[in-house]
Amino acid sequence: MNNVTDYNNQTITRGDLKYQGKAKSVYWTSQADILWLHDTNQATALNGKVHENISDKGRLNSAISYLLFKHLHQHGVATHYLKHISETDELVEKLDIIPVEVVVRNFASGHFVSRFGVASMTELTPIVQEFYYKSDALDDPFINDSQLIALHYATAEEIKSLRLKSAEINDILRRRFAEINIELIDFKLEFGRRADGNMILADELSPDNMRLVDKTSGQSLDKDIFRQHKGDLTVGYREVLQRLEKLEK
Amino acid sequence: MNNVTDYNNQTITRGDLKYQGKAKSVYWTSQADILWLHDTNQATALNGKVHENISDKGRLNSAISYLLFKHLHQHGVATHYLKHISETDELVEKLDIIPVEVVVRNFASGHFVSRFGVASMTELTPIVQEFYYKSDALDDPFINDSQLIALHYATAEEIKSLRLKSAEINDILRRRFAEINIELIDFKLEFGRRADGNMILADELSPDNMRLVDKTSGQSLDKDIFRQHKGDLTVGYREVLQRLEKLEK
Repeated sequence: MNNVTDYNNQTITRGDLKYQGKAKSVYWTSQADILWLHDTNQATALNGKVHENISDKGRLNSAISYLLFKHLHQHGVATHYLKHISETDELVEKLDIIPVEVVVRNFASGHFVSRFGVASMTELTPIVQEFYYKSDALDDPFINDSQLIALHYATAEEIKSLRLKSAEINDILRRRFAEINIELIDFKLEFGRRADGNMILADELSPDNMRLVDKTSGQSLDKDIFRQHKGDLTVGYREVLQRLEKLEK
Repeated sequence: MNNVTDYNNQTITRGDLKYQGKAKSVYWTSQADILWLHDTNQATALNGKVHENISDKGRLNSAISYLLFKHLHQHGVATHYLKHISETDELVEKLDIIPVEVVVRNFASGHFVSRFGVASMTELTPIVQEFYYKSDALDDPFINDSQLIALHYATAEEIKSLRLKSAEINDILRRRFAEINIELIDFKLEFGRRADGNMILADELSPDNMRLVDKTSGQSLDKDIFRQHKGDLTVGYREVLQRLEKLEK
């Protein structure tokens, strides 16, 4: 793997490992405000308690994430994504990450179903938006607005912005997937603040963090294949990538 | 126990059991819009998994609830409470109960502490308000606004009202308890709709549903005595009642 790339007419060199995530490695670079992400082949479930190495998963995630971030950019959504460097690597802006995962649900699935006793795939209108406090030690607890504010994890203004931005991103991505006969069931987003205080989309956009099903067959095309031992996860991911690539032509 | 009382110049007769709660029995009456509540001596913990019969608990809860509801009435808060009939019984308006428990927290305690990893008794500013969907089968799951709306358990308007009313009740009760050197740590409320659609306070107001501590000693005066096996629960409840009664003189 090459450790050097260029961006904005500058040479960027990969530096030390900043953070080893569940499915990606995050490195410092020669530029303080730029990070280098490397997508690994690791697949995890149950918040990391189950994990496995799956050949080609890193490349598929990296390629899908690239196309989805590009699509959001084209629709005026500010994100941390800077450059797709190689099959498994990208440059992103370094942000002050807000310690909140935002989950958007268009249909009931996963633990939403067991938690509230509703039928799987019930359409949720209006959409459901959930916040989780990012903490491995606490197992990312579900958190509401007043708790986020009282615990100083986010301000009321930021919460409003998280809700507006994630709803807008949901609209854009849901329409994009509909063009390739895929339903966006739910997904997870993370946001961060730029030095100027502006909050923008961070993290990745891949079937690791989304539930995607074929609108005709109802077949899973996301990490549920792995979570539920339904076969080879990369078959689903590859299908998503191939359909997204067709839209680029 | 007498099964007859009067209210508004009408004779009210206790009817069939409508619902056997954890710490009270709810009966129909000769009036379709009035219910008869009887406070039992049952104490439960862990959502009913642990229970015990504690002599005098029903009378203490009934008396405390009466004084707190009376105080709220005097401060213009509409509630379902109609009449204290006997040491352990009261008449209340029959409401269409909203299937949501509202928890208000002034200080971190109980599972809030373990859930978010904050120190016990951290003051929460602004206050925390939490909603739980009332369902024994689902173990009363924690629920947020968008989930309540998408699942049609409450409208956005009702949620706003639940938040405003519970904050107002918290202000009034917290000040009342401060007068008798007690801190209101947190408590649970339930609301229901009148036939005219108006939403008012229901359920009971007792140390079964509140955390109360002596401001000087920090000693528990509520059901935590029972939950944490700290001794005789009625000692705490009796102390709360005696202090509240002093304010009546």
